[in-house]
Amino acid sequence: MALGERGGWDKSESRYCGVETDFNDDMPHLLSFNLSSGGFDFVVASLMDPNYRPSLMEKDIGGGSHVLPFAGSDLVLSPSQWSSHVVGKISSWIDLDSEDEILRTDSETTLKQEISWASHLSLQACLLPSPKGASCANYARCVNQILQSLNNMQLWLRIPLVKNDDDTTDFIPSVSTVTYAQILSWRIFSIHVYSRGDSWELWNSFRLLCEHHSQLSVALDVLSSLPSANSLGRWLGEPVRAAIIHTDSFLTNARGYPCLSRRHQKLITGFLNHSIQVVISGKLNHGVPSVSLDSALDHTGTNVESSQRHSLRPYLDYIAYLYQRMDPLPEQERFELSYRDFLQSPLQGHNPLFHIISDEFCTIEFSNYYLSFQPLMDNLEAQTYETFEKDSVKYIQYQRAIGNALVDRVPDEEASSLTTVLMVVGAGRGPLVRASLQAAEETGRKLKIYAVEKNPNAVVTLHSLVRLEGWEKTVTIVSCDMRCWDAPEKADILVSELLGSFGDNELSPECLDGAQRFLKQDGISIPSSYTSFIQPVTASKLHNDVIPCLCAQVSPLEAISFSSKCALALQVKSHKDVVHFETAYVVKVHSVARLAPCEPVFTFTHPNFSTKKSNQRYKKLRFEIPSDTGSAMVHGFAGYFDAMLYKDVHLGIEPSTATPNMFSCCASSSVCFVESYFDTGLQIPAWFAIFFPLRTPVCIRPGSPLEVHFWRCCGSTKVWYEWCVASPNPSPVHNSNGRSYWVGL
Amino acid sequence: MALGERGGWDKSESRYCGVETDFNDDMPHLLSFNLSSGGFDFVVASLMDPNYRPSLMEKDIGGGSHVLPFAGSDLVLSPSQWSSHVVGKISSWIDLDSEDEILRTDSETTLKQEISWASHLSLQACLLPSPKGASCANYARCVNQILQSLNNMQLWLRIPLVKNDDDTTDFIPSVSTVTYAQILSWRIFSIHVYSRGDSWELWNSFRLLCEHHSQLSVALDVLSSLPSANSLGRWLGEPVRAAIIHTDSFLTNARGYPCLSRRHQKLITGFLNHSIQVVISGKLNHGVPSVSLDSALDHTGTNVESSQRHSLRPYLDYIAYLYQRMDPLPEQERFELSYRDFLQSPLQGHNPLFHIISDEFCTIEFSNYYLSFQPLMDNLEAQTYETFEKDSVKYIQYQRAIGNALVDRVPDEEASSLTTVLMVVGAGRGPLVRASLQAAEETGRKLKIYAVEKNPNAVVTLHSLVRLEGWEKTVTIVSCDMRCWDAPEKADILVSELLGSFGDNELSPECLDGAQRFLKQDGISIPSSYTSFIQPVTASKLHNDVIPCLCAQVSPLEAISFSSKCALALQVKSHKDVVHFETAYVVKVHSVARLAPCEPVFTFTHPNFSTKKSNQRYKKLRFEIPSDTGSAMVHGFAGYFDAMLYKDVHLGIEPSTATPNMFSCCASSSVCFVESYFDTGLQIPAWFAIFFPLRTPVCIRPGSPLEVHFWRCCGSTKVWYEWCVASPNPSPVHNSNGRSYWVGL
Repeated sequence: MALGERGGWDKSESRYCGVETDFNDDMPHLLSFNLSSGGFDFVVASLMDPNYRPSLMEKDIGGGSHVLPFAGSDLVLSPSQWSSHVVGKISSWIDLDSEDEILRTDSETTLKQEISWASHLSLQACLLPSPKGASCANYARCVNQILQSLNNMQLWLRIPLVKNDDDTTDFIPSVSTVTYAQILSWRIFSIHVYSRGDSWELWNSFRLLCEHHSQLSVALDVLSSLPSANSLGRWLGEPVRAAIIHTDSFLTNARGYPCLSRRHQKLITGFLNHSIQVVISGKLNHGVPSVSLDSALDHTGTNVESSQRHSLRPYLDYIAYLYQRMDPLPEQERFELSYRDFLQSPLQGHNPLFHIISDEFCTIEFSNYYLSFQPLMDNLEAQTYETFEKDSVKYIQYQRAIGNALVDRVPDEEASSLTTVLMVVGAGRGPLVRASLQAAEETGRKLKIYAVEKNPNAVVTLHSLVRLEGWEKTVTIVSCDMRCWDAPEKADILVSELLGSFGDNELSPECLDGAQRFLKQDGISIPSSYTSFIQPVTASKLHNDVIPCLCAQVSPLEAISFSSKCALALQVKSHKDVVHFETAYVVKVHSVARLAPCEPVFTFTHPNFSTKKSNQRYKKLRFEIPSDTGSAMVHGFAGYFDAMLYKDVHLGIEPSTATPNMFSCCASSSVCFVESYFDTGLQIPAWFAIFFPLRTPVCIRPGSPLEVHFWRCCGSTKVWYEWCVASPNPSPVHNSNGRSYWVGL
Repeated sequence: MALGERGGWDKSESRYCGVETDFNDDMPHLLSFNLSSGGFDFVVASLMDPNYRPSLMEKDIGGGSHVLPFAGSDLVLSPSQWSSHVVGKISSWIDLDSEDEILRTDSETTLKQEISWASHLSLQACLLPSPKGASCANYARCVNQILQSLNNMQLWLRIPLVKNDDDTTDFIPSVSTVTYAQILSWRIFSIHVYSRGDSWELWNSFRLLCEHHSQLSVALDVLSSLPSANSLGRWLGEPVRAAIIHTDSFLTNARGYPCLSRRHQKLITGFLNHSIQVVISGKLNHGVPSVSLDSALDHTGTNVESSQRHSLRPYLDYIAYLYQRMDPLPEQERFELSYRDFLQSPLQGHNPLFHIISDEFCTIEFSNYYLSFQPLMDNLEAQTYETFEKDSVKYIQYQRAIGNALVDRVPDEEASSLTTVLMVVGAGRGPLVRASLQAAEETGRKLKIYAVEKNPNAVVTLHSLVRLEGWEKTVTIVSCDMRCWDAPEKADILVSELLGSFGDNELSPECLDGAQRFLKQDGISIPSSYTSFIQPVTASKLHNDVIPCLCAQVSPLEAISFSSKCALALQVKSHKDVVHFETAYVVKVHSVARLAPCEPVFTFTHPNFSTKKSNQRYKKLRFEIPSDTGSAMVHGFAGYFDAMLYKDVHLGIEPSTATPNMFSCCASSSVCFVESYFDTGLQIPAWFAIFFPLRTPVCIRPGSPLEVHFWRCCGSTKVWYEWCVASPNPSPVHNSNGRSYWVGL
């Protein structure tokens, strides 16, 4: 029944709340009890009798004629009930890294039987119990085998949310060796045995052994005490699918109802905002006033469990309250929801792989390849561009910068006599022309504008705009590439908007170098300078998306087989690796963990009349993660820019200084995405971040800084970036000679 | 003129000795002086005037019309003189990681100009100066760019052989920052600035940044003091091409001639044995008696350098003396020379990649793919098999084991009355039949032999052997697969030789499980047990060879271009990665560094009448490298076996216990390679080691143990291994489900 409505736009999984149940052979009752009566959306239910042990079965019965003690057959529920409302809970007693060989073998057999059963039922996910000790190699090996030929089912590895700040970096449960006899009598492995260390390390080992498999994700056990905020932040970049909240993690409010601490509230709200589903686990721990319990009891219950029937309902109600209380998303954010963590080729990025496929100039093929879903394009067609352009924070900043430059250049006393020559290079449909004219009007300065645009389609629009607005006397339209234009006079002010997400990545430096020929020696360039920034991020989704998911091409229900099809998928998967991992992507980063503050990378200043100027750059960067974060995985670097338009007027997306509302405008503006429309026939949201992946993710530890090198290289026909990690362990230099990704001159 | 003759069989590069020279514009004179008069085979000569600096050139001359100050044009020497006798020495002053941007840019320009010039001259190698500081990322980035489109030229990175046992693990030269002015006046960068740390770390960073490129190798500067033997040992697994020995590393003997310390001698002999060329560098430092110098002077010299003309000849003579003094290689070793470090598919190994290509049972395609060079096959055809089989150390061991078993089984008093039933399963051409009969004769026991062989061609040979030898009454030939044979009686002794390099890797356990049906309950299996072993190794050549060198498919003289051909090569290179890196190879390991003693992996015992037996195995292993080794790179694991034939008679290749002469027989025996001839139509040298690669090599440090997991997995139709590193950093589990490599049942 979901946690509630948030205006109907929230389609994420986190609307649904589950409950962890004990083993119950009567699945239909279990389901109706928890869903209809309890109000939950799904159950996390044991699939197999917890007393089952393969080694005992054979002794007891002999031969292979016994039926496995599963919870109900596939017929007791409809296929859609199984798949929509049941997450399979794998037997908690399994321990594939036990020293006891019988337990180990029993565990592997049971795990494979249960997963196979869950696949047969088409469940969407199974919950794997936590590894029992610090070592998990055999468990991971077995899960990895299963993942190689799994259908679409997700495997959620249960990990307790624990990080104690002692001196050990390893995660060591306090109970590390458990006898088989103990396990036999031990229904549910208590998560409380984890007393020290950092459970992230355990997850990290497991997923490295399973090679970042996209169907392996995390279910976090949220306990009553929480690690530091930095440590929690790491998980936002990991594939966390569920947060299992134990009833004893709840506090009791004044009226006797369960509630969560402020830190827990913030964490859960963060989870709900990142499509992480909540699951309630445990028993009623709170003295909920008997009235409400009684009234609930009156309506249903006859069987023996009736006294517990609604016992967890107060916890669900509290989570629903948190969900409904969340701030509504601003319109702009909602508009961009489908772009979250969605990799797109940056404007003008070229990729040899697609050259081969299409044997043509590849931007469009490449982009379509990724941009199968294009909500912004449709929306843009339905709206007027003028609205966007007028409301834009971006053009307001430009207008302010131009105004300030005009006032600096022309004293008040000469305002009526002196005409400033302003050239807009890359005028597009004219927003900067408009901003310039508005700035002139505001400041009372006289302006002569040349609007230089190379795209003939945009020139058509420009002409009609000028006619429509009556700007003919002030604005001269030049249909020409700025690098070839033979200007009739020199400009006082050169205005451009050529910046990409990473500042110089759309070749603004090269374009403006070409255009400054017709700028006066004391002329002004707006922007006058810009700097790119990067920061290391955990971004497991982006990492997995860099390889288009080709495993899915293997037919989903295929049983474990070692066919040539498998081998083919393997090849296809790996043969695209290098090229894709050496490409930078434009992406609205959402499910990432930002591990350290941004550092500046490359700066360009305009105009630059130096005779020895070069647009090549080299920067060595060092990042130190906070000591309370714990270790973390760096999948790559999020990149941003900040531009100084003129003096103190800046524009940018670097998170700490981002122009307000550049990320997400609360007004009706969506202007950010418009600018390149006419240039390319595509809309790339220019103000999203850029993502530089690492071919092999790097694990960093507090106290051991991450040293990164970035190069901007310039050839005769193209510009490209190379990057590498030098410390703690050197990576290969990525994109050598721009072999995988470059921008053409 | 080479260092001398070693029976004419040594074709390795290490026969040739070079000399490092100063810049000299007169290349013909430089060459004749050092080769004809000096006796050296090649010169390591500066290609460019050391005073050249690009930034100064432009100022001095202006425009681009100047000629670069190279040492002679390509016309002053013949193409073959350039390529056979000159190694280009890149300007020593370059420093691409300097803080000084002008020096950095000058360095990059010069490096590219010199490499381009060397390529134009078709030199075989260039010597790159040592990185100047601990940081080498920009230098590596530039070299990596060059490597992407280099012709066949090798780049030798000069690395001083330094490792001091202080507490720092980083390699930090004592002079870390050098001003441009200093560099300008500094002709040759002194290697003596390296005072502490481990220079291997510097090499390791550089090659990781350049992604283990196969054309990047090492030239080691051998100094007067040497690191520990373990530390030196690491280099044998690295691509060391040259050892530059400085004259001040020599001692002076009683007669005033230069000589080397015992440790130096051992090191140089080791280098010569690993195809590493020696280069002499420096000035005459020893009071060589004037007579010999004078007489040399008389014959030639007129020009100003005449007094130094032969100054380094005594050093060359000493190296030649060391070379000639080396023990001659045993015949068997010479026979196997071409197999050194040459990857071969193990017997019966299957690989889906080749299934796809050939769409057939792939062993032959796969093997031919690697085994383009097959000297053993030709030799075998020219010789009689009887000779091999009689002389074999292997069959002598079998004969001893069978004899001991016969004596144990039949007391002397029953020798003439009791007949022992012995079955040879997999009899092949009959060597074990012969060994059994000889054992019976030796011990005076009576024998009845069943020779079971499934290959009909081998059965033909067996029949004629039996007829020829008159064994008809004792030997019954059974043309049948041992797994299906319906034996007429049960055996006392079951003899087989089904072991591969890794013991169980040719499915001996499964075969013997099938055959033991017809062994008496108290019967004896020979072998009675066997164990596999592994050890971590540095093996950069094997690592690079795992990917067939596909870069070479790009036409060698192609200039730096970013064509689709490049991108294609990139894809081809990477798309085979996973499958090849998840395959085990049979290889005669030579240029490897064995980083830790072997550990046992899987053990099988026969017969095994237990009802719950399984041939699945799981082993967790820990390796600790000696503390004086320093850090080292693990490219994979060398695997071996040891078999207990009967009681104390063993057979094996595990290095610490290897059967004498199993590796290299000094007699006329080459028997090891014969056994599988009739089975497969191919000879795979069965007793070479096996190599399990790692997809990403793992760097290990002393005090931080390497934890490795190995699994032997059994399916209904195949058997395969999976392996992973769990610590210090987890690797993916290799060969999940046997997706890349398995052995069919």
